[in-house]
Formats: sequence, structure tokens, C-alpha cells
Amino acid sequence: MTDFGTQMRIRLPLACIILEIILIILFGVLVQYDHETDAKLWHKELAKNDSHAQNYDNDFYYRYPSFQDVHVMIFVGFGFLMTFLQRYGFSSVGFNFLIAAMSLQWATLMQGFFHGMHHGKIHIGVESMINADFCTGSVLISFGAVLGKTSPVQLLVMAVFEVTLFAINEFIVLSILGAKDAGGSMTIHTFGAYFGLVVARVLYRPNLDKSKHRNSSVYHSDLFAMIGTLYLWMFWPSFNSAITAHGDDQHRTVMNTYYSLAACTLATYAFSALLCHEGKLDMVHIQNAALAGGVAVGTAGEMMLTPFGSMIVGFLAGTVSVFGFRYLSPILEEKLKIQDTCGVHNLHGMPGVLGAIVGSITAALATMDVYGEGMADVFPDIHSGAIDASQQGVRQIISLAVTLGIALFGGLIVGFILKLPVYGAPPDTHCFEDAVYWEVPGEEAAHEELTAVKTEETEKLNS
Amino acid sequence: MTDFGTQMRIRLPLACIILEIILIILFGVLVQYDHETDAKLWHKELAKNDSHAQNYDNDFYYRYPSFQDVHVMIFVGFGFLMTFLQRYGFSSVGFNFLIAAMSLQWATLMQGFFHGMHHGKIHIGVESMINADFCTGSVLISFGAVLGKTSPVQLLVMAVFEVTLFAINEFIVLSILGAKDAGGSMTIHTFGAYFGLVVARVLYRPNLDKSKHRNSSVYHSDLFAMIGTLYLWMFWPSFNSAITAHGDDQHRTVMNTYYSLAACTLATYAFSALLCHEGKLDMVHIQNAALAGGVAVGTAGEMMLTPFGSMIVGFLAGTVSVFGFRYLSPILEEKLKIQDTCGVHNLHGMPGVLGAIVGSITAALATMDVYGEGMADVFPDIHSGAIDASQQGVRQIISLAVTLGIALFGGLIVGFILKLPVYGAPPDTHCFEDAVYWEVPGEEAAHEELTAVKTEETEKLNS
Amino acid sequence: MTDFGTQMRIRLPLACIILEIILIILFGVLVQYDHETDAKLWHKELAKNDSHAQNYDNDFYYRYPSFQDVHVMIFVGFGFLMTFLQRYGFSSVGFNFLIAAMSLQWATLMQGFFHGMHHGKIHIGVESMINADFCTGSVLISFGAVLGKTSPVQLLVMAVFEVTLFAINEFIVLSILGAKDAGGSMTIHTFGAYFGLVVARVLYRPNLDKSKHRNSSVYHSDLFAMIGTLYLWMFWPSFNSAITAHGDDQHRTVMNTYYSLAACTLATYAFSALLCHEGKLDMVHIQNAALAGGVAVGTAGEMMLTPFGSMIVGFLAGTVSVFGFRYLSPILEEKLKIQDTCGVHNLHGMPGVLGAIVGSITAALATMDVYGEGMADVFPDIHSGAIDASQQGVRQIISLAVTLGIALFGGLIVGFILKLPVYGAPPDTHCFEDAVYWEVPGEEAAHEELTAVKTEETEKLNS
Repeated sequence: MTDFGTQMRIRLPLACIILEIILIILFGVLVQYDHETDAKLWHKELAKNDSHAQNYDNDFYYRYPSFQDVHVMIFVGFGFLMTFLQRYGFSSVGFNFLIAAMSLQWATLMQGFFHGMHHGKIHIGVESMINADFCTGSVLISFGAVLGKTSPVQLLVMAVFEVTLFAINEFIVLSILGAKDAGGSMTIHTFGAYFGLVVARVLYRPNLDKSKHRNSSVYHSDLFAMIGTLYLWMFWPSFNSAITAHGDDQHRTVMNTYYSLAACTLATYAFSALLCHEGKLDMVHIQNAALAGGVAVGTAGEMMLTPFGSMIVGFLAGTVSVFGFRYLSPILEEKLKIQDTCGVHNLHGMPGVLGAIVGSITAALATMDVYGEGMADVFPDIHSGAIDASQQGVRQIISLAVTLGIALFGGLIVGFILKLPVYGAPPDTHCFEDAVYWEVPGEEAAHEELTAVKTEETEKLNS
Repeated sequence: MTDFGTQMRIRLPLACIILEIILIILFGVLVQYDHETDAKLWHKELAKNDSHAQNYDNDFYYRYPSFQDVHVMIFVGFGFLMTFLQRYGFSSVGFNFLIAAMSLQWATLMQGFFHGMHHGKIHIGVESMINADFCTGSVLISFGAVLGKTSPVQLLVMAVFEVTLFAINEFIVLSILGAKDAGGSMTIHTFGAYFGLVVARVLYRPNLDKSKHRNSSVYHSDLFAMIGTLYLWMFWPSFNSAITAHGDDQHRTVMNTYYSLAACTLATYAFSALLCHEGKLDMVHIQNAALAGGVAVGTAGEMMLTPFGSMIVGFLAGTVSVFGFRYLSPILEEKLKIQDTCGVHNLHGMPGVLGAIVGSITAALATMDVYGEGMADVFPDIHSGAIDASQQGVRQIISLAVTLGIALFGGLIVGFILKLPVYGAPPDTHCFEDAVYWEVPGEEAAHEELTAVKTEETEKLNS
Repeated sequence: MTDFGTQMRIRLPLACIILEIILIILFGVLVQYDHETDAKLWHKELAKNDSHAQNYDNDFYYRYPSFQDVHVMIFVGFGFLMTFLQRYGFSSVGFNFLIAAMSLQWATLMQGFFHGMHHGKIHIGVESMINADFCTGSVLISFGAVLGKTSPVQLLVMAVFEVTLFAINEFIVLSILGAKDAGGSMTIHTFGAYFGLVVARVLYRPNLDKSKHRNSSVYHSDLFAMIGTLYLWMFWPSFNSAITAHGDDQHRTVMNTYYSLAACTLATYAFSALLCHEGKLDMVHIQNAALAGGVAVGTAGEMMLTPFGSMIVGFLAGTVSVFGFRYLSPILEEKLKIQDTCGVHNLHGMPGVLGAIVGSITAALATMDVYGEGMADVFPDIHSGAIDASQQGVRQIISLAVTLGIALFGGLIVGFILKLPVYGAPPDTHCFEDAVYWEVPGEEAAHEELTAVKTEETEKLNS
């Protein structure tokens, strides 16, 4: 593989080192342990006579298992889900790894800046780590839309901007508008998907079909992708419940998500077989659409949606997603010139919007009769009497609109920034190809071996 | 791949959609949040003056990490364990995914019906989720026996019946007979294995050797299978302890299982090398027999078996399992006409029976001197004086007999139901082949590329 | 593959069975449940009027999730990390599995002997399980240095000796010298790496280049290795915090490790691109160096290192590691005759030493002003006034020296024991080759198929 202006020897080290130095300096200046991670503060709390606090009350024990599940989703889940491409496994897993490692540091700062400041310092602990991973998830969704067509430097630049905009949108939606979105149907999925789709639109490549022979899977790459799918599927209950209130809220969210995903999976298999060639199942649907049920209860999962309601939502989400892959994606590509490599519109975009709507309706229907004193955890403003349930429903819908607005507008601006010809993006002929940015092993060896065997055989036949 | 009456375009969507609609309706009518997932009920409990309950007392925090480990075993563990076949990876992971997603919903209803009813409603929470996953595990064991020879619709039908019979057997064994079986040596492994073996017997295919070239592994498929093996092995302590009593019981069960598996692994390597061709290790043994130690302490793990006892049991289980693969499986196939694709008899059948016997002996030897007040958690009826230890031992053995009876008889009936020629099962020539039910990528591309390279080379040589 | 004196039919069964019988006997004689796993003792504790103990106070709930993460690192993390070799995947995962299963049993005894004896019995529970897994990790690091050049029997013998020496060193460092090393920068990583490197030196093979065509990766093997890398990376926070004090200590350790790894990852990508051929990323660096940040905060992670300090350490560790792979490893091989298959010197050796030094400095800088009453957990001897902070720093450095001494001297002795020509090690021509010890499937089938297709094509061309 020769050089097509895709050389990373200077660009990538420069980007990584400058970013990391900035991060380290800002952490040095701004970041402090919170009262549960700081030795002195925590022990001061333990020593208070009236607190009865024990080491076991540290929030670590009630959030860290969920955090680890989310962490697996971010690095293994997203990373391997994208390995379905035959020649892009290194980049899928590897760039996912790189931009996630950068984003979670930057997200700590941006989210801390918007809602974690205490006397000019950002206080961090396990909850901020979960939030940083969440924000990173949004960037990885956008990565899915541009997969195979971008350089690692371009992705890092995208991540820096997207994390910043994510934090702004999250602040507006959760803190200013007072919407609820624990599992991020809006703030994570809708935002990440539409941001990424607009970026993909701006980076449209009219001659991408020169790489189309690489824009597909092979047998083993589809199995690797199933590792990603299953980890996302299994741990989605932890994702949606990771930052809800303790007690019934976390417990309920987990259960709603579990049943939503199960129902979604049956819908996915049903419509995949129905819509495909000869009634055969399509791996693309199984890998992606079966997850839509997790996205679609991201907002309402903590509410009293009931397993019954969750299953209906999951079934709808799986259905919408398969139809999207089958009929909408080709239209997006041909008419709107959006080349959405992983189909994030079908997995995160539409199910995210569905989740926002479901959340709005469920919120609008909340009553004290159903929630009892639990209302204080789920809808504090309804509980306090500041607003009524229908107003909460309106808040949710406004939040969806704001999220879409910031995602689309932000994606547009960032897309143009990413279009500058300085990042070493691959040419149209070498998209979806690891060898552009990676030392790829075994190529020559395998070819030589094949040739050797063949030559031998041919000689035998010719003699 | 042309159509051999295996078309799924109508059959599979119909089966999935009808099943899911029934499930959703039944959930709507019958299922409710329990007192730990319901906002109102939980907060009522918190508010009681004399309860001192806190959010942190919610059982979620003491069961959910175990649940997630079990969940990984069900979807990644079983799913990837079966990917060892060279051309059946999509189906192994994919059908595992489908039938598990269906079974856990149906199991919630069936198990709830038999032992979770409160005033006509099924109350659910994290414990019912674990139980649903357990029941699903049993179905997946049976799936292993018929792997490669069934259509997805056939598997869904099998799952519906098997889950129902599982719930009945579980009810008889645990609630009526009063046996203990926290890790399911009997209710999960013995039941699932013998049920599946009888189904395989009824579905016997005399001409299966037409597909025998596909009934084996390739290098990478064996590595994928090791992902399944290791996750099952690592998380088996969580499986066996997931629903035992809190405190010492969960803690002890985990430790017994850990040491049983470790000893089992050494036995597996020892006998694999001893019995195989040229003293080489056989991946089939490593992938399967090394897990038998987890099965064999499924019943006794929560008892005071001691690590010493656990290691002896584990060592025996590994030994029995390897001998089974080497000598018994061929006999089962030739004499009894049981074509057991994954060798579930060796991994779940015999070790399950061994586990039941170990459980019976360990129960019969229980004394207050050893258990102290802990007896109330492990053997409440011995503690209360209702029965003595030897009677508990008898209960355990009767439970094994009942389980075997229901599994064999149930498998026979369900086998004949599955024999009806309406499910689109693959012909003998196309067993163990993904392309029957899946769009398989890259086939033509890979072949064309190979041909192109070869042609070129040949031309060069000929010129 | 014919026999080169590598026959395992007698050797391996003999080794496994004898070892397991010894282990079982010693467990029977020496090992008992501790007060949290024993039914009687735990319930006696619950019944004490003044204890207010509840089942939920059982340490199981505060250690087991961390244990499971560590367990995944040991079996999947280390196992798959080493599958990068094209023809050694079965051995990498399979021998890792075998020696880990043996080592954790032996470690329970050795560590119990040195610091878990109560009235002549070894008491075990979840903490001893974590420690056993830790000790196993050290053996697996050494395995990485000799990967591909040893027989399974040789590895078992190495493990028996190494576990013993590990326990002695750990006892000296933690109990006699009073050093702190919760995440094992010294006791696990430095020890395992230098022990393994000396063994590799003693087992030096001058003609190893006869196998060099197999001493490299192929496309899919590199993806399998990334599974190992990511699980190690994600769960390293659990590793470093698994046995620290409860409360702020575990919480802080997790956070420091998380940020160290993130910074390390950016350094790894930066220097990989900078130093490699054409600025392309090298999978070897990504798979290994990105983990060095976890190693390097193994000692200081529980201290008040701050995220800022952790990121600096992580960045340095990644840098050192990549430079090591690029420049130092070839020198070690050519000048010092150390054939370090996995580059453990770069991942565990140098970052381990760095971690020890960072730990020493951080300890020497500890003040009551920063730690408050938390000092009692992190540095009990400073808190009690027995020593001052700088003395603790000295303890740490002496511990590093002791660890290096025992590792180097122990490795030398054990290396010579392993050089005896009785273990069935592979000949120089057949290193890095699974087929020496494993039934490898599909070989002939694949070759025949290839030949068949080619013959057909050639005939067509010739006719």
C-alpha cells in the first residue's frame, strides 16, 4: 500500500500528544477527587457522629458494576460491532479504542464544566466516569456513520467537537429544560446518530463505489461483529440504569430494558426473514436491529412503563429498524447522499426518536397513584407540585427538538471542519481498508503460500 | 443455495409474531412489578418507621451482578460454545440468540404461574429474571443435542414446550418434593440434556453422513468456541450461587464451584492427552469437559461440601466427561441412534446425574454440628426438625428420578411434535450449513478472487 | 505432524493427575472455610447481639464483582492476548487455561501458608480467591516470555515453582518489609516479567529462526488478540482495586487506573505511528503498550496520586513501552539472547519498575494534610507514627530490589530445571505450532479443497 497523502507519521502523533498534554494540564488545574474518592473527605464523613456512614455506603459499590458493564459496551460492544467489514477490523476496533480513550478524558472536563463544578473545581467519582463513558458512546455512534471513510486524526477532531456539543446539549436538556433521559434515547442516541449522519452527508463521496468490494462482510468478520452485538444486548439494562436513582429505579429500569430487548429480538428475526431474499436471515439486521429495543426505552425505562409497555416499545423498535435497513437506507444514500456505513440511522436515529416520544407520553401519563412517593425520584418537579405531568411531557418533546437541532446544526459545522484536506483521509479507492493506516500482517505470506502450492500443482499437471 | 422446503419467509415471521403477540398480551394481563421494582410499593416500604429499609437494601444490589454473569453465559457462553462447527457459526450464535430471547419471556410466565403468583398476578424482579435465564439455559442445552439439524421454527416450538415442562418439573422438585438444587444439576442440566437427547433420538437421521464433511471444526471456529467455553467456566460460580440465600451461602457456593472447575480442568487435560491419537489434546474435550465440574456441583455447591470435596467431584466430572466423549458418544450414535451434535450427554447429562447424587449424599450427611444456624438457609426442613438429613437425601434422589422421567417422557412427546414435516428442517445433505437459513457473505467473492489469482498465475506459467 | 519426542500421552496425564492428587490431599488436610463462607461461623456472627451484622455485610458483596473482572482478565484477557500468533491460538488459550487452573489451586495453598494460617489451617474466602488469581497472573506473564517454545508439562513445572517463589516474595515485600502494592506493580508484574525473561534466557534457542515464519500474526489472529487486550484494559481498574481497603480506597484506585490507561492509550497510538514504517500503526503496540498504564499505577493507584498524576504516569508508561518494543526488544534478543515472544519486558517489566518507583515517590510525599484519617488505610505505619513518609518510600524501593533479586535468581534456577530434556519441548523447527500438541482440524480438508479447485481450473485452462 503506497502513500496517498494518508501518511500518519507526523499528523497522528502530533494530534495525540497535543491533545493529551492539554488534557493533562486541564486535569491538573481543574480536577479534584470528590468526597467519596478523596481519602481525607471520605474519612471526615465517616467520622461524623450523626452520619452512621460506613465504607460500604460509598457509592462505588452501587454504581461500579454498572459502570463496568457500560465500559464493556463502549470498548468491546461498539468496537466489535463494527468489525463486520472484511478489511476494516483493525480500524474498527482500534480507532474505536483510540477515540474512546480520548473522549472519556475530554468528556470528564466538558461535563464537569457544565454540571460538576464546585468552587471552581470539577469533582469526579464513579458517576462522572459513567457519564464520560456515555458521552463517549455518542461519539462512537457518529463514528459508525462515517466508518471506513475517515482518518484517525479526523476522528479525533470530530470527537473533540462532538463531546463539547454533547455536554452543551445535555446541560440544556437535563439541567435547563428539566427533562429526564437516564438511558440517553435523546442525549446519546438521537444526538450521536443525527450528528454523525450530517457529518457523513457533508463528507459525501460520489465515487465511493470504487471501494464497494470492501464495503461488505466475510464469514468470520460477521462472527466477530456478533461479539459486539451480544455484549451490547446483554449489558444494555446496565446502560439504561447506570445513573438512575438507587433502589426501585435502577431495578425497574433494568427489567424494562430486559423485556424490551427480548421482544425486539423476535421482531427483528421476524421481519428480517420476511423482507429478505428467499426468506433468509440477514446478519446486518440481527447485529443491529435486535439492539433497537434498548435504545427505545432509554428515556422511559426508569418510568413505570411496565414490562408490557416495554415489550410493545421493543417490538416496534425492532420492526422500524429492520424496515429502515431494508428500505430507508438505500433511499438515504441515493436521494439524500448520506452514506451511513453502519446504518446508525436505523439502530440509533429512529429508535432514539421513538424512545423520546415514548418517554414524553409515559411522563405525561404519570400519576401519584402509580408512582407514590417514588415520584420524587423519577419526576421531582411533578412531586414537588412545580409542574403537572403533561408539562413534563412537553419538556421531553422540547428536549427532543433541541437535541435534533443541536445535532444537525453542530454536525453541519463540524462536517465542514472535517472536510479540510489536512487530515489524511483515505482516497475513494481505499476506503474500508485497514492497510491504509495499519501494518497488516500475513498478506504477502498468505499470497506466497497460495502461489507456491499452485505452482507446484501446475507443474505436476504440466509435467 | 436453492430452496429445499426450508423457506422461512412465511414460517419464521409467523411463528415469531404470533408468539410475541401472545407473550405481550399475557404480560399485559398477568405481570406486575414486585415490591422492589414498583415505585409506589418500594417507597411505601422505605417509609415504614420500623423497617429502617434503605434504597441500598433493594435486592437488586445483591443479585444483579450475578444475573449479568448468568446472562453472559446464556448468550455469549452457550452461543459461542456452539460455533465450533465450520459452517454453522451464524446459526449457532443466531438461533441461540433467538430462542433465548423467546424463552426468557415465556419462562417468566410459566415459572411465575407455578411459583410467583400473588392475588392472580405474577410479580417480577431480578430473581425472576435469573430464574428465567436458568430455564432458558435448559433449552439451550437441548439445542446443543439437535444443533445443525433443525430449523429455527422447530427450535421455537421446542422451546415453548420445553420451558413449560421445565417449569412443571421445577415446581415438583423444589416446591412439592422440597429438594435443593440452586445451581440446577437436576432441574437445568439433567433435564435439558435428557430432554434434548430424546428429541435427537426421535429426529434421528439415518443419512446424516451426507453432511458429515460439515460436521467438524476449522481452526478459527475452534477459537470462537473457546470464547464460549471460557465465559461459561469463569462465570459458573455466579451461576451456581445466583439464587442461593444471601451471606455465607452465596459466598460458599462461589468458592466450591471455583475449585471444582479448577480440578475438573486438570482432569480434562490429563485424560484428553491420555485417550487421544498420539497423545494430542482434543479441542472438543477442552471446550466441553472442562466445564463438567460446574455442572457436578450445581446441587451440592451451596452445601458444606468443602473445597476438598468440590475438587474431588470436579475431578470425577472431568474424567467422566472425557471418557464419555471418547467412548460413549460413538456408542450412543451407533447403537441408540442418538446423534448428539455437541455431546451434551457428556457435558450436562452424566455430570448432571453425578451432581444430583453428590447433592443427595451431601444432604444426607448434614449435621447441626457442621451447619449451625446456617442450616435454616440450606435445609430449612432439617432445621425445623420436620425431617432428618437422610430423608433430605432421599428427597434429592427422588427428585433426580422425577426429573429424568419428565425429561425422557416430555422429550419423546415433543420429539414427535417436532417430527411433523411443517417446520422447514434442512435435508440430510444440508445439515450443519448456515446458507440454508442465512444470507452468507463473501462466498462468491472469495471464490472469484481465488480463481482470478490462480488463473493469472497459471497463465503466467503457461506463457 | 510426526513425533519429535514431544509425545504427551504419558507425560501430561502423569503431571496433571499427580499434581491434582497432591492438591486435593493438601486441601483436605489444610484448607477450611473462613468465617464468611462457613455456615456455622457466619451465623454465629450474625447472632451476636452487639454486632448488628447482616447477611449483606458479608465481604462477598464488596469483593466478588471485582473478583469476576480479575478472573476474566486471567482467562480471557491473558489467554486471548496471546492468540496473536498465526498457528498457536489453541496453545495460547489452552495452555493459559491449564496452567491458570493449576496455579490458582497451588497459590491458595502457598499464599495461605505464608499469610493465611489460623491454628494450623488455611482459611479461604473471596479475598484469597482474588489473591490466587493475582499470583496466577504472574505465572501467565512469564508464560508470555516463553510462549511457543515450551511443552505444557514444562509450563506446569514452571508454574509450581513460580507460584511458590511468588508467595515467598509477596510475604517478604508486604508482610516483612511493610510495602504497599495493591495492584502488584512489583509483586505481580515486575516479578512475573523478570522471572520469565531469565527463564527465556536460560532456554535460549539459537536456531529459533527455523520457526520464524510462524512467529507472526495473521489478520484474524490479531483480532482475537484484541479481545484479550480490551478485556485487560477495561477491567484493569478492578484489578488494581480488588484488594485495597473498602470505601474511598477502592473507589480512588479505580479512577486513577481509568485515567492512567486512557492517557497511556493516546501515547501508544502517537508513538506507534511515529516510530513505525510509513507512519502506520502496529498491532503489537496497540495490543500491548496501551495496557502499560495499568501496570504503572499498580502500586500508587490506591494512594492520593490524583487523576492528573495518573495520566502523567500512564503517558510515560505507554511511551516507554512502545519504545521498548521498537528498539529494546531486538537488542535483548541479539545481545542478551532473550527471546521474549510477547514482549513482556515492554508491557510488564519496564512499566512494573516504573510503577514501583512512582509508588515509592508517592509514598514518600504522603502527608496527613492530604490523607487525613484515610492515612490509616493506605499507610497504617505512617498513621500510627511508627515511621515517616520518606521511610515508607524507602520500604517501597527496597521491595523493588528484593522482588528483582528473587525474580532473577529464581528464574535462573527454574530455567535450568526446565532445561532438562524430559518435558517434551518442541524442536526449533516446530515452535509456535499448535499441531505439536493439539489435534488441529480442517488442515487436510482445506488443503484438499484448495487443490481440487485448482486442479479443476488448471484442467479447464489446459484443455
